[in-house]
Amino acid sequence: MDSDTEAIPADIDIARNAERRAIESVGADLGLAAADLERRGNEVAKLTWDAIHREMDQPADGNLVLVTAMTPTRRGAGKTVTTVGLGQAFGRLDERSVVAIREPSLGPVFGIKGGAAGGGYSQVLPMEEINLHFTGDIHAVTSAHNLVSAMVDAHRHHGNELGIDPDRVVWPRVLDMNDRALRETVAGLGGTASGPPREDGFSITAASELMAVLCLATDVSDLRERVSRIIVAYDTDGDPVTVADLDVAGSVASLLKDALRPNLVQTIEGTPAFVHGGPFANIATGTNSILADKLGLRLGDYVVTEAGFGADLGAEKFVDVVSREGVEPDATVIVATVDALQKHGGIEDDESDPMAALRAGFANLDHHVEVLQSMGLPVVVAVNRFPDDSDAEIREVLDHCEEQNVPAAVSTVHADGGAGGTDVARLVKGEVESGDGELQRVYDLDASLPEKIRAVATRVYGADDVEFTSGARDDIERIEAQGLDDMPVCISKTPSSLSDDPGKIGVPEDWTLTVTELSPSAGAGFVVVLTGDVLTMPGLPSDPAAAHIDIDEDGSIHGLF
Amino acid sequence: MDSDTEAIPADIDIARNAERRAIESVGADLGLAAADLERRGNEVAKLTWDAIHREMDQPADGNLVLVTAMTPTRRGAGKTVTTVGLGQAFGRLDERSVVAIREPSLGPVFGIKGGAAGGGYSQVLPMEEINLHFTGDIHAVTSAHNLVSAMVDAHRHHGNELGIDPDRVVWPRVLDMNDRALRETVAGLGGTASGPPREDGFSITAASELMAVLCLATDVSDLRERVSRIIVAYDTDGDPVTVADLDVAGSVASLLKDALRPNLVQTIEGTPAFVHGGPFANIATGTNSILADKLGLRLGDYVVTEAGFGADLGAEKFVDVVSREGVEPDATVIVATVDALQKHGGIEDDESDPMAALRAGFANLDHHVEVLQSMGLPVVVAVNRFPDDSDAEIREVLDHCEEQNVPAAVSTVHADGGAGGTDVARLVKGEVESGDGELQRVYDLDASLPEKIRAVATRVYGADDVEFTSGARDDIERIEAQGLDDMPVCISKTPSSLSDDPGKIGVPEDWTLTVTELSPSAGAGFVVVLTGDVLTMPGLPSDPAAAHIDIDEDGSIHGLF
Repeated sequence: MDSDTEAIPADIDIARNAERRAIESVGADLGLAAADLERRGNEVAKLTWDAIHREMDQPADGNLVLVTAMTPTRRGAGKTVTTVGLGQAFGRLDERSVVAIREPSLGPVFGIKGGAAGGGYSQVLPMEEINLHFTGDIHAVTSAHNLVSAMVDAHRHHGNELGIDPDRVVWPRVLDMNDRALRETVAGLGGTASGPPREDGFSITAASELMAVLCLATDVSDLRERVSRIIVAYDTDGDPVTVADLDVAGSVASLLKDALRPNLVQTIEGTPAFVHGGPFANIATGTNSILADKLGLRLGDYVVTEAGFGADLGAEKFVDVVSREGVEPDATVIVATVDALQKHGGIEDDESDPMAALRAGFANLDHHVEVLQSMGLPVVVAVNRFPDDSDAEIREVLDHCEEQNVPAAVSTVHADGGAGGTDVARLVKGEVESGDGELQRVYDLDASLPEKIRAVATRVYGADDVEFTSGARDDIERIEAQGLDDMPVCISKTPSSLSDDPGKIGVPEDWTLTVTELSPSAGAGFVVVLTGDVLTMPGLPSDPAAAHIDIDEDGSIHGLF
Repeated sequence: MDSDTEAIPADIDIARNAERRAIESVGADLGLAAADLERRGNEVAKLTWDAIHREMDQPADGNLVLVTAMTPTRRGAGKTVTTVGLGQAFGRLDERSVVAIREPSLGPVFGIKGGAAGGGYSQVLPMEEINLHFTGDIHAVTSAHNLVSAMVDAHRHHGNELGIDPDRVVWPRVLDMNDRALRETVAGLGGTASGPPREDGFSITAASELMAVLCLATDVSDLRERVSRIIVAYDTDGDPVTVADLDVAGSVASLLKDALRPNLVQTIEGTPAFVHGGPFANIATGTNSILADKLGLRLGDYVVTEAGFGADLGAEKFVDVVSREGVEPDATVIVATVDALQKHGGIEDDESDPMAALRAGFANLDHHVEVLQSMGLPVVVAVNRFPDDSDAEIREVLDHCEEQNVPAAVSTVHADGGAGGTDVARLVKGEVESGDGELQRVYDLDASLPEKIRAVATRVYGADDVEFTSGARDDIERIEAQGLDDMPVCISKTPSSLSDDPGKIGVPEDWTLTVTELSPSAGAGFVVVLTGDVLTMPGLPSDPAAAHIDIDEDGSIHGLF
């Protein structure tokens, strides 16, 4: 089980040296014909609409495995690598396995986080393409989003017949870049030819409601319908102005029509993988497209997919938002790390006893396990082993899980590929095969907005209560008046703590969640609930990844990780 | 020769009903193997680097036909449709023919001009894809450009070690959208976390120097080298800050590596066509990538390509800028229309006699012909016939050309496809086969900047002299001090008149060109010369094309034209 991960080569070198199958061969593993695949190079394809429609008419016989995590640290839990590795592991168990993950954003690729295509011997390929423009889906969202923005200001410029209130435009512009200077801007300067001016700002494309729409829509009609409903501003009477009011739902849907089709690639072990869509995990669902999941469940036995952040955020949203659109997890995997356990056990306060900190950190893990169990979901803990974890530490985690009667195994998929994930995969398979659970959502849609939020806060986050600022109460009143309060809630909260205070570790007690703002994502179909500042446009660090990426004469890229 | 073009179906319907060959079959016409093509769907491919390098080692035996125009009107001369139709016509003359044109920008697609893939029975296919995201080249330029912008502001945020002067950042941000509200902005607002603020603005992506670089670079090394040299700002001492200084030349080149490879598609008659790159025609070269031209000259007998605006702008830049990179036209085609001749003959002043106006307009056409002849280039006039042109009007134009001893023929390629262009193609072929001309550039590179500008102004535009504002004189001094004055000049002037006043028709006399600003595009390799305001970010009209585009349940797009 021990492995020397420090000695393994850089991700891009592993990727470049991997054997790669033509994408038609990968598709054939899933029963797809060459004609079902629209090639984008030799190793990437978009499914054709014919294939998508045909498969969607089939029963969804596969099992959905949702990979989530305990409260993560800055180092990261390794959820994506676990998802990819687990997909490979199911292949080694002779299951027809499919991985489904998000598309990486260029922001983190050039910023601080690096690429997002897994790592080590559990990656999706071709990693350079996936991490750079890939099939252009994110660029399509950027274009479609900014067309709507341009229409808002052009409408105001040409007389503002709809009466758009310049102070209540709720549709920022977007770029797929970490660019803090664009967070708050003034646009429309330079006189009447370019005006009128207004306060404006940019989010990163992943934060666009269009990205959420893309990930929840199941066909072109559904996409167009959702796009139409998106609220971009309010008029001077306070009534919503939608994309439909601006007459561009058709153009937006046209720009997104190819982006809506899932992208098929392969893992480093040749396992079929859908890499499709990339919404934020706080103000949106934080998981890949539902169309990728749905197709995977029709094409494969096991679909391994990932939700953003910890189980309190990503998994809760999967259960309360995504699953209402027709995909339910058959089992969940919680990724735990010694690093995260020690952090949540207070190692920063008490560096003298890492083992005591580790043990104290179990509370956080157990909380996430219990949350998922309360949703009726089978849970397996995957202990993602890092090179500096000791055997004793790993043993302690496994023993704890055994005491708690929670299936747990070590995962070394980064160093060992699928072989490092078969123990976890076997446990998941056991849970799925013996599974008779019924999904229990945290709230019903007909509950009031405060009731829905309170249910998540108390039952998932462990808060005592919820407070609403007066602004939040006004928002609730307005959303009720608009008749949009029957949507699920999508709560934005810090991922670094179960509470709303990123500094609080473990399982914080005696705290109240403060809701500051609510806004309807009427196209995506949920109400975004803010519990403090949410940063929708990251910045570049002083020494960004962008300064270390280079390209050879022959087109080989270096420094991408 | 007469044809009822009013009755022909909409471009998108013609396109949708056209027979389409698999792209491998199109490539085979040029001697390309399937392995030379990286598919992007069934009808689009990027050439592989292996194929590009192999072909570039071959001699350039083909003939380059440059399509340009007399001074155009708002209606447009039909240069793209003529270029595509002429490519088809050479095919009908049993020549191995290749079309090379620019990639359409989304700005005009959703704005006022519509798509840019030709029209009627002389289009490139698949028109929906080409007009929307196509292979993502323009999106790649947008991303690469904005990465540099983000680095500029991140550098300032993190201490500004390079001493960038916030008032002298010469690198705007870009979007591929018509969005006037972004012309002049203030960025970096919201306090120290997002600052420091500065005046900023956006251009449309086609105006990015990176687009010009992409269209002039011949391989990845050349691309990276040019990117490195780009000046993005000046420091507080007035010294240039380059992309290399920001350490992102490698990342930028990585983002552009696939965009650099030409895209192969087909015309509606199956003629191979490169659709690649799309720079502005005033502050840049206004023609497709040089790599597309160079490959076409190695793969085909005739490459028909297009330069932006009239011969004073696009063709002059082709001769003085592009051709110095190693492609020379073997013949030129000037597109003339009855509409443009009448406008330049003053029909708006004297509506009573269209025929007199037509005759008076010949002076403008003759000027463009003489300019091209003075460059040693064979010229053929293609009279692009519109449905409302009378036989007498067309006859008058042909008679005039005959008197002037200039080969001329009617083109009806919009209505008739390649068959409508064979008369012009035969004349071009005759000129090429009898051709013994030597290309005469307008100036030598070792002339001073004022001498180069004066040569173009007097010999091409017909100005008496050139005046420089004091700002322009300062710019010249600075560029000379930087040692960048040995580059060719790329003059931005209104396309609507031979002079710098868009209201002046015909061949304006007794006028002086006023140069207001010069700036080095050190990566592209030319000095941009402004002669008045240049709009690098268009706006959406009050009833934009975006409001009329829609999509069916089955993904068919309507209203794209």
